[in-house]
Amino acid sequence: MDTGRPDQPRHYVPHALAPEDYLPHSLTQPTVVLGQRPAEAAGLNLDYVEIADERGTHAAVTHLLAQGRRRIAAICEQKGPRAGDRRLRGYRQALAEAGVAYDDSLVLGVGDADLWSSGVAAATRLLRARARFDALFCYNDVVAIGALSVLNRSGVAVPDDVAPAGFDDIEAARFVSPPLTTVDPRRESIARTAVALLRSRMDLADFRELPGRTETAGFALRVRRSSAARPPAEDTGHAP
Amino acid sequence: MDTGRPDQPRHYVPHALAPEDYLPHSLTQPTVVLGQRPAEAAGLNLDYVEIADERGTHAAVTHLLAQGRRRIAAICEQKGPRAGDRRLRGYRQALAEAGVAYDDSLVLGVGDADLWSSGVAAATRLLRARARFDALFCYNDVVAIGALSVLNRSGVAVPDDVAPAGFDDIEAARFVSPPLTTVDPRRESIARTAVALLRSRMDLADFRELPGRTETAGFALRVRRSSAARPPAEDTGHAP
Repeated sequence: MDTGRPDQPRHYVPHALAPEDYLPHSLTQPTVVLGQRPAEAAGLNLDYVEIADERGTHAAVTHLLAQGRRRIAAICEQKGPRAGDRRLRGYRQALAEAGVAYDDSLVLGVGDADLWSSGVAAATRLLRARARFDALFCYNDVVAIGALSVLNRSGVAVPDDVAPAGFDDIEAARFVSPPLTTVDPRRESIARTAVALLRSRMDLADFRELPGRTETAGFALRVRRSSAARPPAEDTGHAP
Repeated sequence: MDTGRPDQPRHYVPHALAPEDYLPHSLTQPTVVLGQRPAEAAGLNLDYVEIADERGTHAAVTHLLAQGRRRIAAICEQKGPRAGDRRLRGYRQALAEAGVAYDDSLVLGVGDADLWSSGVAAATRLLRARARFDALFCYNDVVAIGALSVLNRSGVAVPDDVAPAGFDDIEAARFVSPPLTTVDPRRESIARTAVALLRSRMDLADFRELPGRTETAGFALRVRRSSAARPPAEDTGHAP
Protein backbone atom coordinates (compact mmCIF):
# COMPACT_ATOMS: atom_id res chain seq x y z
CA MET A 1 0.00 0.00 0.00
CA ASP A 2 1.51 3.30 -1.08
CA THR A 3 0.47 6.10 1.25
CA GLY A 4 2.80 8.78 -0.02
CA ARG A 5 2.22 11.77 -2.22
CA PRO A 6 4.93 12.60 -4.75
CA ASP A 7 6.39 15.36 -2.60
CA GLN A 8 6.43 13.53 0.72
CA PRO A 9 8.20 10.65 2.41
CA ARG A 10 6.57 7.31 1.71
CA HIS A 11 5.46 4.52 3.99
CA TYR A 12 4.90 1.10 2.59
CA VAL A 13 3.37 -2.01 4.05
CA PRO A 14 4.97 -4.60 1.81
CA HIS A 15 2.29 -7.19 2.46
CA ALA A 16 1.41 -7.41 -1.21
CA LEU A 17 4.35 -5.47 -2.62
CA ALA A 18 7.41 -6.92 -4.26
CA PRO A 19 10.74 -5.17 -3.61
CA GLU A 20 10.82 -3.90 -7.17
CA ASP A 21 7.60 -2.01 -6.46
CA TYR A 22 9.11 0.20 -3.80
CA LEU A 23 12.91 -0.01 -3.97
CA PRO A 24 13.20 2.51 -6.83
CA HIS A 25 11.58 5.18 -4.64
CA SER A 26 14.13 4.60 -1.90
CA LEU A 27 16.80 6.07 -4.16
CA THR A 28 15.07 9.42 -4.34
CA GLN A 29 13.13 9.66 -1.07
CA PRO A 30 13.61 8.78 2.59
CA THR A 31 12.02 5.36 2.94
CA VAL A 32 11.13 3.02 5.78
CA VAL A 33 9.57 -0.40 5.26
CA LEU A 34 7.49 -2.32 7.80
CA GLY A 35 8.65 -5.84 7.11
CA GLN A 36 11.60 -8.02 6.39
CA ARG A 37 14.64 -6.64 4.55
CA PRO A 38 14.97 -8.66 1.33
CA ALA A 39 18.25 -9.59 -0.30
CA GLU A 40 17.62 -7.00 -3.02
CA ALA A 41 17.85 -4.22 -0.41
CA ALA A 42 21.12 -5.38 1.13
CA GLY A 43 23.24 -2.40 0.13
CA LEU A 44 20.55 0.28 -0.07
CA ASN A 45 20.08 3.29 2.16
CA LEU A 46 16.59 2.54 3.38
CA ASP A 47 15.34 1.26 6.71
CA TYR A 48 13.28 -1.73 7.79
CA VAL A 49 11.33 -2.52 10.92
CA GLU A 50 10.96 -6.27 11.13
CA ILE A 51 8.39 -8.14 13.19
CA ALA A 52 9.79 -10.61 15.72
CA ASP A 53 8.45 -13.57 13.77
CA GLU A 54 11.04 -16.09 14.89
CA ARG A 55 11.48 -14.99 18.49
CA GLY A 56 7.76 -14.43 19.01
CA THR A 57 6.91 -17.89 17.75
CA HIS A 58 9.75 -19.34 19.78
CA ALA A 59 8.23 -17.76 22.90
CA ALA A 60 4.76 -19.09 22.13
CA VAL A 61 5.95 -22.64 21.51
CA THR A 62 8.23 -22.55 24.55
CA HIS A 63 5.20 -21.55 26.58
CA LEU A 64 3.23 -24.51 25.22
CA LEU A 65 6.14 -26.80 26.09
CA ALA A 66 6.25 -25.35 29.59
CA GLN A 67 2.59 -26.38 29.99
CA GLY A 68 3.70 -29.96 29.46
CA ARG A 69 2.68 -30.17 25.81
CA ARG A 70 4.86 -32.41 23.68
CA ARG A 71 2.88 -33.02 20.49
CA ILE A 72 2.64 -29.50 19.14
CA ALA A 73 1.10 -29.29 15.69
CA ALA A 74 1.60 -26.23 13.49
CA ILE A 75 -0.60 -24.66 10.83
CA CYS A 76 1.70 -22.24 9.10
CA GLU A 77 2.37 -20.68 5.76
CA GLN A 78 5.66 -22.14 4.67
CA LYS A 79 6.84 -19.74 2.04
CA GLY A 80 5.96 -16.42 0.48
CA PRO A 81 6.20 -12.93 1.87
CA ARG A 82 4.10 -13.59 4.94
CA ALA A 83 6.70 -14.62 7.43
CA GLY A 84 5.63 -18.25 7.70
CA ASP A 85 9.13 -19.61 7.17
CA ARG A 86 10.54 -17.44 9.93
CA ARG A 87 7.79 -18.47 12.30
CA LEU A 88 8.39 -22.12 11.52
CA ARG A 89 12.07 -21.62 12.34
CA GLY A 90 11.06 -20.31 15.76
CA TYR A 91 8.78 -23.33 16.18
CA ARG A 92 11.52 -25.81 15.30
CA GLN A 93 14.09 -24.08 17.46
CA ALA A 94 11.83 -24.17 20.51
CA LEU A 95 11.17 -27.88 19.98
CA ALA A 96 14.87 -28.59 19.56
CA GLU A 97 15.77 -26.74 22.74
CA ALA A 98 13.25 -28.82 24.65
CA GLY A 99 14.55 -32.05 23.13
CA VAL A 100 11.27 -32.70 21.32
CA ALA A 101 11.67 -34.29 17.90
CA TYR A 102 10.27 -32.40 14.93
CA ASP A 103 7.43 -34.38 13.36
CA ASP A 104 6.70 -33.41 9.79
CA SER A 105 3.25 -35.00 9.92
CA LEU A 106 2.18 -32.40 12.47
CA VAL A 107 3.07 -29.40 10.29
CA LEU A 108 0.40 -28.27 7.82
CA GLY A 109 0.43 -25.41 5.35
CA VAL A 110 -2.31 -22.86 5.13
CA GLY A 111 -3.17 -23.51 1.50
CA ASP A 112 -4.51 -21.01 -0.96
CA ALA A 113 -7.89 -20.27 0.58
CA ASP A 114 -8.51 -17.28 2.81
CA LEU A 115 -6.87 -17.65 6.21
CA TRP A 116 -10.08 -18.20 8.18
CA SER A 117 -10.99 -21.15 6.01
CA SER A 118 -7.40 -22.38 6.06
CA GLY A 119 -7.54 -22.78 9.81
CA VAL A 120 -10.81 -24.66 9.51
CA ALA A 121 -9.48 -26.92 6.76
CA ALA A 122 -6.14 -27.71 8.41
CA ALA A 123 -7.66 -28.47 11.80
CA THR A 124 -10.23 -30.67 10.10
CA ARG A 125 -7.42 -32.55 8.35
CA LEU A 126 -5.57 -33.09 11.63
CA LEU A 127 -8.68 -34.48 13.29
CA ARG A 128 -9.63 -36.68 10.33
CA ALA A 129 -6.09 -38.08 10.18
CA ARG A 130 -6.46 -38.88 13.88
CA ALA A 131 -3.20 -37.05 14.48
CA ARG A 132 -2.10 -37.14 18.10
CA PHE A 133 -1.49 -33.54 19.14
CA ASP A 134 -1.92 -31.68 22.41
CA ALA A 135 -1.15 -28.17 21.23
CA LEU A 136 -1.41 -26.19 18.02
CA PHE A 137 0.68 -23.24 16.97
CA CYS A 138 -1.03 -21.26 14.22
CA TYR A 139 0.49 -18.85 11.74
CA ASN A 140 -1.77 -16.09 12.99
CA ASP A 141 -4.90 -15.47 15.02
CA VAL A 142 -7.24 -15.72 12.07
CA VAL A 143 -5.97 -19.22 11.31
CA ALA A 144 -6.10 -20.05 15.02
CA ILE A 145 -9.68 -18.88 15.42
CA GLY A 146 -10.71 -20.95 12.42
CA ALA A 147 -8.96 -23.98 13.94
CA LEU A 148 -10.44 -23.29 17.36
CA SER A 149 -13.93 -23.31 15.88
CA VAL A 150 -13.28 -26.83 14.58
CA LEU A 151 -11.91 -28.05 17.92
CA ASN A 152 -14.91 -26.60 19.74
CA ARG A 153 -17.56 -28.12 17.55
CA SER A 154 -15.71 -31.46 17.39
CA GLY A 155 -15.83 -31.86 21.15
CA VAL A 156 -12.08 -31.44 21.59
CA ALA A 157 -11.58 -29.82 25.00
CA VAL A 158 -9.55 -26.60 24.90
CA PRO A 159 -7.08 -26.39 26.58
CA ASP A 160 -7.37 -29.81 28.27
CA ASP A 161 -7.01 -31.87 25.08
CA VAL A 162 -5.45 -29.33 22.74
CA ALA A 163 -3.97 -25.90 23.50
CA PRO A 164 -4.01 -23.56 20.49
CA ALA A 165 -2.00 -20.36 20.16
CA GLY A 166 -1.80 -17.72 17.46
CA PHE A 167 0.14 -14.65 16.40
CA ASP A 168 -0.91 -10.99 16.02
CA ASP A 169 -3.14 -10.35 19.02
CA ILE A 170 -6.09 -9.18 16.96
CA GLU A 171 -9.02 -7.98 18.98
CA ALA A 172 -11.18 -11.03 18.29
CA ALA A 173 -8.53 -13.21 19.99
CA ARG A 174 -9.68 -11.92 23.36
CA PHE A 175 -13.32 -12.74 22.74
CA VAL A 176 -13.35 -16.23 21.31
CA SER A 177 -14.01 -19.09 23.71
CA PRO A 178 -11.71 -19.76 25.33
CA PRO A 179 -9.71 -16.57 24.76
CA LEU A 180 -6.71 -17.23 22.58
CA THR A 181 -3.06 -17.19 23.64
CA THR A 182 -1.11 -15.19 21.09
CA VAL A 183 1.98 -13.15 20.29
CA ASP A 184 1.43 -9.40 20.39
CA PRO A 185 3.76 -7.86 17.79
CA ARG A 186 3.52 -4.44 19.42
CA ARG A 187 2.14 -2.46 16.53
CA GLU A 188 2.50 0.83 18.31
CA SER A 189 6.17 0.19 18.94
CA ILE A 190 6.61 -0.74 15.28
CA ALA A 191 5.00 2.53 14.24
CA ARG A 192 7.11 4.59 16.64
CA THR A 193 10.31 2.93 15.51
CA ALA A 194 9.42 3.46 11.86
CA VAL A 195 8.70 7.13 12.36
CA ALA A 196 11.93 7.62 14.32
CA LEU A 197 13.96 5.96 11.58
CA LEU A 198 12.30 8.04 8.92
CA ARG A 199 12.67 11.27 10.84
CA SER A 200 16.38 10.77 11.48
CA ARG A 201 16.84 10.30 7.75
CA MET A 202 14.69 13.29 6.84
CA ASP A 203 16.72 15.50 9.18
CA LEU A 204 19.83 15.06 7.08
CA ALA A 205 20.84 17.34 4.24
CA ASP A 206 21.22 14.18 2.15
CA PHE A 207 19.19 11.28 3.44
CA ARG A 208 21.62 8.88 1.74
CA GLU A 209 24.32 9.72 4.27
CA LEU A 210 22.95 7.06 6.61
CA PRO A 211 23.45 3.40 5.72
CA GLY A 212 20.37 1.17 5.69
CA ARG A 213 19.24 0.18 9.15
CA THR A 214 17.20 -2.83 10.25
CA GLU A 215 15.36 -2.84 13.56
CA THR A 216 13.43 -5.80 14.94
CA ALA A 217 10.36 -4.85 16.95
CA GLY A 218 9.72 -6.25 20.38
CA PHE A 219 6.84 -8.59 21.14
CA ALA A 220 4.79 -9.78 24.10
CA LEU A 221 3.31 -13.19 24.70
CA ARG A 222 -0.34 -12.91 25.75
CA VAL A 223 -1.18 -16.02 27.71
CA ARG A 224 -4.91 -16.67 27.80
CA ARG A 225 -7.17 -19.60 28.60
CA SER A 226 -6.69 -21.42 25.29
CA SER A 227 -3.33 -22.62 26.60
CA ALA A 228 -3.46 -22.28 30.36
CA ALA A 229 -6.16 -23.12 32.84
CA ARG A 230 -5.18 -20.09 34.90
CA PRO A 231 -3.58 -17.39 32.79
CA PRO A 232 -2.10 -14.31 34.44
CA ALA A 233 -4.97 -11.99 35.32
CA GLU A 234 -3.75 -9.10 33.21
CA ASP A 235 -3.70 -11.17 30.07
CA THR A 236 -7.13 -12.70 30.07
CA GLY A 237 -8.56 -9.92 27.99
CA HIS A 238 -11.77 -9.61 29.99
CA ALA A 239 -12.56 -6.79 32.34
CA PRO A 240 -15.77 -7.94 34.01
CA MET B 1 -13.11 9.18 4.88
CA ASP B 2 -12.57 11.32 1.83
CA THR B 3 -11.30 9.26 -1.08
CA GLY B 4 -11.64 11.84 -3.79
CA ARG B 5 -9.08 14.02 -5.51
CA PRO B 6 -10.08 17.57 -6.32
CA ASP B 7 -10.81 16.74 -9.96
CA GLN B 8 -12.75 13.54 -9.42
CA PRO B 9 -16.08 12.40 -8.00
CA ARG B 10 -15.95 11.77 -4.29
CA HIS B 11 -17.04 8.85 -2.17
CA TYR B 12 -17.63 9.31 1.50
CA VAL B 13 -18.21 6.86 4.31
CA PRO B 14 -19.89 9.18 6.78
CA HIS B 15 -19.07 7.01 9.77
CA ALA B 16 -17.13 9.80 11.45
CA LEU B 17 -18.22 12.67 9.22
CA ALA B 18 -20.81 15.29 10.00
CA PRO B 19 -23.03 16.47 7.12
CA GLU B 20 -21.27 19.85 7.12
CA ASP B 21 -18.02 18.05 6.30
CA TYR B 22 -19.23 16.72 2.97
CA LEU B 23 -22.41 18.55 1.95
CA PRO B 24 -20.54 21.57 0.53
CA HIS B 25 -18.77 19.32 -1.98
CA SER B 26 -22.10 17.95 -3.21
CA LEU B 27 -22.89 21.38 -4.67
CA THR B 28 -19.91 21.27 -7.00
CA GLN B 29 -19.33 17.54 -7.61
CA PRO B 30 -21.39 14.39 -8.17
CA THR B 31 -21.70 12.85 -4.72
CA VAL B 32 -22.99 9.62 -3.26
CA VAL B 33 -23.01 8.85 0.45
CA LEU B 34 -23.05 5.38 2.02
CA GLY B 35 -25.33 5.98 4.95
CA GLN B 36 -28.47 7.65 6.13
CA ARG B 37 -29.73 10.84 4.48
CA PRO B 38 -29.79 13.51 7.18
CA ALA B 39 -32.33 16.30 7.43
CA GLU B 40 -29.72 18.80 6.21
CA ALA B 41 -29.58 17.00 2.86
CA ALA B 42 -33.33 16.95 2.28
CA GLY B 43 -33.41 19.24 -0.75
CA LEU B 44 -29.95 18.61 -2.14
CA ASN B 45 -28.99 16.87 -5.37
CA LEU B 46 -26.87 14.11 -3.93
CA ASP B 47 -27.56 10.44 -3.44
CA TYR B 48 -27.55 8.12 -0.46
CA VAL B 49 -27.38 4.35 -0.10
CA GLU B 50 -28.82 3.44 3.27
CA ILE B 51 -28.25 0.20 5.13
CA ALA B 52 -31.40 -1.75 6.01
CA ASP B 53 -30.94 -1.09 9.72
CA GLU B 54 -34.57 -1.25 10.68
CA ARG B 55 -35.70 -4.05 8.38
CA GLY B 56 -32.58 -6.13 9.01
CA THR B 57 -33.01 -5.90 12.76
CA HIS B 58 -36.70 -6.61 12.39
CA ALA B 59 -35.85 -9.81 10.52
CA ALA B 60 -33.31 -10.92 13.14
CA VAL B 61 -35.67 -10.34 16.04
CA THR B 62 -38.57 -11.95 14.19
CA HIS B 63 -36.35 -14.99 13.69
CA LEU B 64 -35.57 -15.12 17.43
CA LEU B 65 -39.30 -14.89 18.17
CA ALA B 66 -39.96 -17.70 15.71
CA GLN B 67 -37.55 -19.86 17.74
CA GLY B 68 -39.89 -19.42 20.69
CA ARG B 69 -37.88 -16.70 22.41
CA ARG B 70 -39.94 -14.15 24.30
CA ARG B 71 -37.47 -12.35 26.59
CA ILE B 72 -35.20 -10.76 23.98
CA ALA B 73 -32.64 -8.39 25.46
CA ALA B 74 -30.87 -5.80 23.30
CA ILE B 75 -27.44 -4.23 23.53
CA CYS B 76 -27.63 -1.31 21.17
CA GLU B 77 -26.31 2.16 20.65
CA GLN B 78 -29.28 4.40 21.16
CA LYS B 79 -28.25 7.61 19.50
CA GLY B 80 -25.52 9.07 17.35
CA PRO B 81 -24.66 8.49 13.74
CA ARG B 82 -24.30 4.75 14.06
CA ALA B 83 -27.76 3.53 13.29
CA GLY B 84 -28.59 2.30 16.78
CA ASP B 85 -31.89 4.15 16.96
CA ARG B 86 -33.05 2.68 13.64
CA ARG B 87 -32.07 -0.82 14.74
CA LEU B 88 -33.94 -0.38 18.00
CA ARG B 89 -37.02 0.65 16.03
CA GLY B 90 -36.80 -2.62 14.11
CA TYR B 91 -36.44 -4.47 17.41
CA ARG B 92 -39.50 -2.81 18.93
CA GLN B 93 -41.58 -3.28 15.83
CA ALA B 94 -40.84 -7.02 15.70
CA LEU B 95 -41.78 -7.39 19.36
CA ALA B 96 -44.99 -5.44 18.84
CA GLU B 97 -46.01 -7.56 15.86
CA ALA B 98 -45.55 -10.69 17.96
CA GLY B 99 -47.54 -9.24 20.84
CA VAL B 100 -44.50 -9.23 23.12
CA ALA B 101 -44.35 -6.27 25.50
CA TYR B 102 -41.32 -4.02 25.28
CA ASP B 103 -39.31 -4.22 28.51
CA ASP B 104 -37.03 -1.28 29.07
CA SER B 105 -34.95 -3.19 31.60
CA LEU B 106 -33.79 -5.54 28.85
CA VAL B 107 -32.41 -2.78 26.62
CA LEU B 108 -28.85 -1.66 27.33
CA GLY B 109 -26.70 0.94 25.61
CA VAL B 110 -23.22 0.24 24.39
CA GLY B 111 -21.54 2.97 26.44
CA ASP B 112 -18.44 4.89 25.49
CA ALA B 113 -15.87 2.09 25.51
CA ASP B 114 -14.81 0.28 22.36
CA LEU B 115 -17.52 -2.00 21.04
CA TRP B 116 -15.81 -5.29 21.98
CA SER B 117 -15.64 -4.22 25.62
CA SER B 118 -19.16 -2.81 25.43
CA GLY B 119 -20.54 -6.23 24.61
CA VAL B 120 -18.61 -7.73 27.50
CA ALA B 121 -19.76 -5.03 29.93
CA ALA B 122 -23.42 -5.07 28.93
CA ALA B 123 -23.72 -8.86 29.02
CA THR B 124 -22.01 -8.86 32.40
CA ARG B 125 -24.54 -6.31 33.64
CA LEU B 126 -27.45 -8.42 32.41
CA LEU B 127 -26.11 -11.50 34.18
CA ARG B 128 -25.30 -9.67 37.41
CA ALA B 129 -28.77 -8.13 37.46
CA ARG B 130 -30.13 -11.67 37.09
CA ALA B 131 -32.19 -10.43 34.16
CA ARG B 132 -34.41 -13.11 32.69
CA PHE B 133 -33.64 -13.23 28.97
CA ASP B 134 -33.59 -16.02 26.44
CA ALA B 135 -32.21 -14.14 23.43
CA LEU B 136 -29.99 -11.15 22.83
CA PHE B 137 -30.01 -8.84 19.85
CA CYS B 138 -26.74 -6.92 19.59
CA TYR B 139 -26.05 -3.68 17.75
CA ASN B 140 -23.37 -5.41 15.69
CA ASP B 141 -21.24 -8.54 15.57
CA VAL B 142 -18.39 -7.07 17.56
CA VAL B 143 -20.75 -6.32 20.43
CA ALA B 144 -22.33 -9.75 20.02
CA ILE B 145 -18.99 -11.57 20.09
CA GLY B 146 -18.02 -9.71 23.26
CA ALA B 147 -21.37 -10.66 24.82
CA LEU B 148 -21.05 -14.26 23.62
CA SER B 149 -17.67 -14.56 25.32
CA VAL B 150 -19.33 -13.63 28.61
CA LEU B 151 -22.18 -16.10 28.14
CA ASN B 152 -19.71 -18.86 27.31
CA ARG B 153 -17.46 -18.37 30.28
CA SER B 154 -20.43 -17.88 32.62
CA GLY B 155 -21.82 -21.28 31.77
CA VAL B 156 -24.87 -19.90 29.98
CA ALA B 157 -25.74 -22.43 27.26
CA VAL B 158 -25.91 -20.96 23.76
CA PRO B 159 -28.45 -21.28 22.19
CA ASP B 160 -30.34 -23.39 24.75
CA ASP B 161 -30.45 -20.72 27.47
CA VAL B 162 -29.75 -17.59 25.44
CA ALA B 163 -29.68 -17.08 21.68
CA PRO B 164 -27.55 -14.11 20.61
CA ALA B 165 -27.64 -12.43 17.21
CA GLY B 166 -25.66 -9.58 15.70
CA PHE B 167 -25.50 -7.34 12.66
CA ASP B 168 -22.86 -6.94 9.91
CA ASP B 169 -21.79 -10.51 9.14
CA ILE B 170 -18.11 -9.88 9.82
CA GLU B 171 -15.87 -12.84 9.12
CA ALA B 172 -15.23 -13.63 12.79
CA ALA B 173 -18.98 -14.24 13.23
CA ARG B 174 -18.64 -17.53 11.40
CA PHE B 175 -15.79 -18.77 13.59
CA VAL B 176 -16.87 -18.03 17.12
CA SER B 177 -18.44 -20.86 19.09
CA PRO B 178 -21.21 -21.33 18.35
CA PRO B 179 -21.21 -19.45 15.04
CA LEU B 180 -23.22 -16.26 15.29
CA THR B 181 -26.55 -15.52 13.65
CA THR B 182 -26.37 -12.11 12.05
CA VAL B 183 -27.70 -9.70 9.44
CA ASP B 184 -25.62 -9.49 6.29
CA PRO B 185 -25.92 -5.92 5.00
CA ARG B 186 -24.78 -6.95 1.52
CA ARG B 187 -21.76 -4.72 1.17
CA GLU B 188 -21.21 -5.63 -2.44
CA SER B 189 -24.75 -4.63 -3.33
CA ILE B 190 -24.25 -1.35 -1.46
CA ALA B 191 -21.10 -0.68 -3.48
CA ARG B 192 -22.77 -1.53 -6.79
CA THR B 193 -25.75 0.67 -6.04
CA ALA B 194 -23.52 3.55 -5.04
CA VAL B 195 -21.46 3.34 -8.21
CA ALA B 196 -24.60 3.13 -10.35
CA LEU B 197 -26.07 6.22 -8.70
CA LEU B 198 -22.84 8.12 -9.13
CA ARG B 199 -22.40 7.07 -12.72
CA SER B 200 -25.90 8.12 -13.74
CA ARG B 201 -25.18 11.54 -12.28
CA MET B 202 -21.78 11.80 -13.92
CA ASP B 203 -23.28 10.99 -17.31
CA LEU B 204 -25.33 14.19 -17.30
CA ALA B 205 -24.17 17.49 -18.74
CA ASP B 206 -25.12 19.03 -15.40
CA PHE B 207 -25.19 16.54 -12.55
CA ARG B 208 -27.65 18.76 -10.69
CA GLU B 209 -30.40 17.88 -13.16
CA LEU B 210 -31.25 14.81 -11.10
CA PRO B 211 -32.95 15.28 -7.75
CA GLY B 212 -31.40 13.60 -4.72
CA ARG B 213 -32.11 9.89 -4.60
CA THR B 214 -32.14 7.55 -1.60
CA GLU B 215 -31.78 3.81 -2.03
CA THR B 216 -31.98 1.28 0.76
CA ALA B 217 -29.74 -1.74 0.34
CA GLY B 218 -31.03 -5.25 0.67
CA PHE B 219 -29.96 -7.56 3.47
CA ALA B 220 -29.85 -11.27 4.27
CA LEU B 221 -30.38 -12.98 7.59
CA ARG B 222 -27.60 -15.51 8.25
CA VAL B 223 -29.00 -18.07 10.66
CA ARG B 224 -26.26 -19.96 12.49
CA ARG B 225 -26.01 -22.12 15.57
CA SER B 226 -26.07 -19.25 18.09
CA SER B 227 -29.82 -19.03 17.55
CA ALA B 228 -30.88 -22.34 16.06
CA ALA B 229 -29.96 -25.89 16.93
CA ARG B 230 -30.09 -26.80 13.25
CA PRO B 231 -29.45 -23.83 11.01
CA PRO B 232 -29.92 -24.14 7.25
CA ALA B 233 -26.83 -25.90 5.88
CA GLU B 234 -25.79 -23.06 3.58
CA ASP B 235 -25.65 -20.59 6.39
CA THR B 236 -23.53 -22.37 8.95
CA GLY B 237 -20.38 -20.78 7.67
CA HIS B 238 -18.29 -23.94 7.86
CA ALA B 239 -17.13 -25.96 4.91
CA PRO B 240 -15.59 -29.00 6.57
